[in-house]
Amino acid sequence: MSIRLLVYRCRVLTPLALAVDFGGTKVEAALVDSDGRLVPDSRHRRPTGRTASVADLESSVGDVVRAAASALPEGAEIVGVGIGCAGPIDRRRGLVSPLNVPDWRDYPLRDFIASVVGAGEGGLGLDIPVTLEMDGVAITMAEHWVGAAQGVDNVMGMVISTGIGGGLIVDGRVITGPTGNAGHIGHVEVGDIVGEDTFGNASALEAMASGPHTVAWARTQGFAGTTGEELAAAYAAGDPIARDAIARTGQAVGRAIASATALLDLELVAIGGGFSHSTPDLFDRMREVIDHHYFPFVRKVRIVPSALSSEGPLIGAAALIHRATLLPA
Amino acid sequence: MSIRLLVYRCRVLTPLALAVDFGGTKVEAALVDSDGRLVPDSRHRRPTGRTASVADLESSVGDVVRAAASALPEGAEIVGVGIGCAGPIDRRRGLVSPLNVPDWRDYPLRDFIASVVGAGEGGLGLDIPVTLEMDGVAITMAEHWVGAAQGVDNVMGMVISTGIGGGLIVDGRVITGPTGNAGHIGHVEVGDIVGEDTFGNASALEAMASGPHTVAWARTQGFAGTTGEELAAAYAAGDPIARDAIARTGQAVGRAIASATALLDLELVAIGGGFSHSTPDLFDRMREVIDHHYFPFVRKVRIVPSALSSEGPLIGAAALIHRATLLPA
Repeated sequence: MSIRLLVYRCRVLTPLALAVDFGGTKVEAALVDSDGRLVPDSRHRRPTGRTASVADLESSVGDVVRAAASALPEGAEIVGVGIGCAGPIDRRRGLVSPLNVPDWRDYPLRDFIASVVGAGEGGLGLDIPVTLEMDGVAITMAEHWVGAAQGVDNVMGMVISTGIGGGLIVDGRVITGPTGNAGHIGHVEVGDIVGEDTFGNASALEAMASGPHTVAWARTQGFAGTTGEELAAAYAAGDPIARDAIARTGQAVGRAIASATALLDLELVAIGGGFSHSTPDLFDRMREVIDHHYFPFVRKVRIVPSALSSEGPLIGAAALIHRATLLPA
Repeated sequence: MSIRLLVYRCRVLTPLALAVDFGGTKVEAALVDSDGRLVPDSRHRRPTGRTASVADLESSVGDVVRAAASALPEGAEIVGVGIGCAGPIDRRRGLVSPLNVPDWRDYPLRDFIASVVGAGEGGLGLDIPVTLEMDGVAITMAEHWVGAAQGVDNVMGMVISTGIGGGLIVDGRVITGPTGNAGHIGHVEVGDIVGEDTFGNASALEAMASGPHTVAWARTQGFAGTTGEELAAAYAAGDPIARDAIARTGQAVGRAIASATALLDLELVAIGGGFSHSTPDLFDRMREVIDHHYFPFVRKVRIVPSALSSEGPLIGAAALIHRATLLPA
């Protein structure tokens, strides 16, 4: 190809990332442009889950990747695949061991997806980079790119849902850690508030403040519901147990944020995930802890809701390609 | 000066940093070469302390800076001043508020030292950069440069002494945080083990595991001594209360290291400070916590004693000049 043709081609083809988000209940894929927008009709979803076999999981992942790729519009090209996956992971080797998917331990997800899109037999014939990071890292990059953390150099992204996860941007750069597991804020200890056991650690934030653990604590106090949605409804109706449960969880999250800020001098924490939407008061309970901290540099940290829709994890996975310069070499 | 002369000069003058370490009990200064070695007879010390006035403190700082500078050997030049100071600090504005020096709140230490060495009236006439960072940041840079963390890209330096402080190197770069206060590991919370109150936070690591707090806890159990040295002696003699106190403190430090590693995927923690020398068993108690952690990426972190002598804080302050490329821009 002549230089003239090459220049022409670079100017007209819209670069798209093929974004993959793999979690404990579902896997999704979509095409995402360099402004963080999903290509219409390119988003596809399949179930995963604790009981899925390796063959089931590979079938689901392969299906969504191929379905997303087939939505490629005319005049566009796929320039890379970004994968956000539930942790722990091994970023150097591209292996994943999602806690809620017991059949995958050191599973080579990056290589599997590379084979689906690649030039080998049965592949899509694309010669493009495939990047794997933890989902909390991806979603933090999405907040920084098009969400609540735009223009902020020292950020923790958090998801409060079935579990509690996160990711870090420090001094404008993404912190993955050498193995890819930096950002496990759910496994930072919190003092004083004794919770239920998670992986043997009753003091881990996740063991106190995830959706299911908050509901479980409320049930020990007499709450009759079984879901986060029911707890949120009870809170809205003024139920005193729900009020105590939200206060306790907000305080626990606030204390973990205080610890992370003491360690990293954070400027902003952006929080999403289903349980974070229970009530805006949850954020007020977190902020009370911060507002009463003894260090001014801890009090400065802002805590805000995520500005991302349910597309956030996919936008974050796409950021691994479109914003690759923020990642470690 | 002609280019030829300039080249000649650059080749023969040995570049030295003027290193300053300011703490709650003393201030020290020395000249340090680009291999991290102190110039003989250049190290000077003056007292600081809780009762010192601003004039006393400025007199002490000025004295050690001038005394160190006057030790400049023939054939050498001072290329910069590096200051490590007890936190909190404000790195952008060069202000310090050391917890144990109540008369200094937002005190402009960087500008004061710049005036001592600078071209103005009464100054030494040097036109050189003056860099201020927290002492924990400096000592972590010293471990990474010539100590126990050489060649490791993801490191936490810790000091266990009257208080507990630290600093971070992540992906080979020093993390200062936007205000300069990243590394406050003593103010990360630890679950389950309830300690005495520090700044209103009984769950902060420092409130459980600093030298004075460990002794205070032992005294609640019947220990008759009052110093860390006495506790170490009692431990060596097999005293059961001293044994419990060391176990409790080691466990608390181990749990804080586990939290920091969950958040930052650390590879190595290097620990110095007077109380860390109480007994090597203290390190074994920390390692037991890590060895039993549920995440392999947490279990990988190594915990080692500092490889620095009492010169460590000065070498770290010098690293702010000689290793300035590791700092944020």
